Amino acid sequence: MRSGTMPVIELIPAREAKPKPPADRLGFGRHFTDHMFVMDYEEGRGWHSPRIVPYQPIALDPSAMVLHYAQTVFEGLKAFRSADGRIRLFRPEMNIKRLNRSCVRLSIPPVDEQLALEAIRKLVETDSGWVPGEAGTSLYIRPFIIATEPHVGVAPSSTYLFLIIMSPVGAYYAEGLKPVSIMVETRDVRAVPGGVGDAKTGGNYAASLRAQQEAKKYGSSQVLWLDGVHRRYVEEVGSMNVFFKVDGTVVTPELGGSILDGITRNSVLRLLQQWGVKAEERRISIDEIEEAHRDGRLEEAFGTGTAAVISPIGELVLGGRKLAVNGGEIGPLASKLYETLTGIQYGRIEDPFGWMMDVLQ
Amino acid sequence: MRSGTMPVIELIPAREAKPKPPADRLGFGRHFTDHMFVMDYEEGRGWHSPRIVPYQPIALDPSAMVLHYAQTVFEGLKAFRSADGRIRLFRPEMNIKRLNRSCVRLSIPPVDEQLALEAIRKLVETDSGWVPGEAGTSLYIRPFIIATEPHVGVAPSSTYLFLIIMSPVGAYYAEGLKPVSIMVETRDVRAVPGGVGDAKTGGNYAASLRAQQEAKKYGSSQVLWLDGVHRRYVEEVGSMNVFFKVDGTVVTPELGGSILDGITRNSVLRLLQQWGVKAEERRISIDEIEEAHRDGRLEEAFGTGTAAVISPIGELVLGGRKLAVNGGEIGPLASKLYETLTGIQYGRIEDPFGWMMDVLQ
Repeated sequence: MRSGTMPVIELIPAREAKPKPPADRLGFGRHFTDHMFVMDYEEGRGWHSPRIVPYQPIALDPSAMVLHYAQTVFEGLKAFRSADGRIRLFRPEMNIKRLNRSCVRLSIPPVDEQLALEAIRKLVETDSGWVPGEAGTSLYIRPFIIATEPHVGVAPSSTYLFLIIMSPVGAYYAEGLKPVSIMVETRDVRAVPGGVGDAKTGGNYAASLRAQQEAKKYGSSQVLWLDGVHRRYVEEVGSMNVFFKVDGTVVTPELGGSILDGITRNSVLRLLQQWGVKAEERRISIDEIEEAHRDGRLEEAFGTGTAAVISPIGELVLGGRKLAVNGGEIGPLASKLYETLTGIQYGRIEDPFGWMMDVLQ
Repeated sequence: MRSGTMPVIELIPAREAKPKPPADRLGFGRHFTDHMFVMDYEEGRGWHSPRIVPYQPIALDPSAMVLHYAQTVFEGLKAFRSADGRIRLFRPEMNIKRLNRSCVRLSIPPVDEQLALEAIRKLVETDSGWVPGEAGTSLYIRPFIIATEPHVGVAPSSTYLFLIIMSPVGAYYAEGLKPVSIMVETRDVRAVPGGVGDAKTGGNYAASLRAQQEAKKYGSSQVLWLDGVHRRYVEEVGSMNVFFKVDGTVVTPELGGSILDGITRNSVLRLLQQWGVKAEERRISIDEIEEAHRDGRLEEAFGTGTAAVISPIGELVLGGRKLAVNGGEIGPLASKLYETLTGIQYGRIEDPFGWMMDVLQ
């Protein structure tokens, strides 16, 4: 698809609007808006027929490849309503670039970046009434691609669907930022270099479910993943990137092929740089974190991701032992990052990096 | 579900039979029979409403979890038509046990094994006219479970569908057993201990697509996977288990959590034991194979799996160098195993292990 010849996105409006759930009952990813975006791919023809249609079930042949071989990629981003009523997206071009990087790993034909961005923008515009305005709420946007060829055989599909669906989501922290307990996972592995850990693809999440369930038994809400080779280096926490503050220096695992290149992670690093806070992307062993905790040098720990933005870690569960981080309280850095990022997202403070994109043109 | 109280499988017959493709145009997994098996799961109610219905598209909410988080498991087995017209399954109980082991890894509720076996049997009976009779053909059976909860959030689904679909498949080797070229993969990794490599789940196959495509560029039809930790030990070939014959001893990688516990693999080991051929399940480094080749001690190599049964390896491509195995010819052991296994499957020879199960009762 040549730049400058972007196809028109057809709009087939829903006959009637669904009732909108009250803001205090939104939850996460359980309610969906009136419309969705759809585009088809066929080998030889490429991506075609971009359109916005009423939100509806999709009919798949039972042999559709995605159901058997998990050839699928997805993204997650949010639209925010500012106090002045503007609706804006947070760094959407980053999500589209990552979607296409995931496509390469999964042998899925990439999408035109300009078209995908316009599809997101136009879909949010179409369902702008679904962007909630209450504190902490937002509209979660889920672009995804699935392999649809009706063929039970291990090979890249010859047909795909690109869809975008949207869900109004409640405040992640209804009662303010709350630290979580995290279990260090020593049995299951999420990903390994050479695998698909740096792609946003279903298989990584399927692999993570068992450990997440186990963690709940130990009172932890998420797991801290260690690397699959040495079983020693910190990778991610749940489906978020992870940061530690040790001796005044912020450290986060380097992008080594097995962890996700998070957009919130990237934004946090940019903010820390702007603030003059020393930050390092490098290998971090769990022993180093344990030692820092023992010596009283582990000042803070937190996860970063689109859903929670910043998720302070108040406790690490390591081999059955519970290590309190910062006395189980939210650290000042996590708090400042949360206030700054959400401040930019909701338009409460200036956007010095040009991260926000207006939906209405 | 208590044993002895197996629910009745309802049958809703198709109004008309689809035309059957000619045996020489079957291919693999491209045509599907007139019926499929379906069963529902809901949290609190368990698996319910087992039924055989006309083969038809399934309607999924676009937020159905399987499309985002790949929470899915599958199996593959075959029904064979003997010369005397009998239709029989090859070790189906092994597939069902493995399906349930995969379920445990993927946090999917297991199915009742007796009911699943009866579902397969009754579905094959219903579509028995679809079991082809030509040499080398069979009916491929694909049981699979998908997460259907309409929820964009990483957690085990609260609802599932268990489906069984069937495809008449052509002779894998239309012109007799043919050795393949295999590329030793050094960049991508299929699985790692602690991951999902020993479960039959979509994510493993999605992760394998890129390397398979690369291998084609080098004239190889499949890749030989090395382990994800040391990048040195042999794991699987394509989606098959792998065997080598070195100095008269047969060796195959041990089941270490990252490779599939193949039913053909198990059957080959049983046959070798019966024949008094020395066989070892152990770690095998690619260096050991290279060395054996250099010293003229690598006598044979072959893959094992449901689709091909035995797939002789005539060439290994290692770092750009091509190593011919057994002069690029089929070895006597691979040939004997193929003849024996297919002989048992098609009823040409005695079934000393009680592996075959009659479909008609």
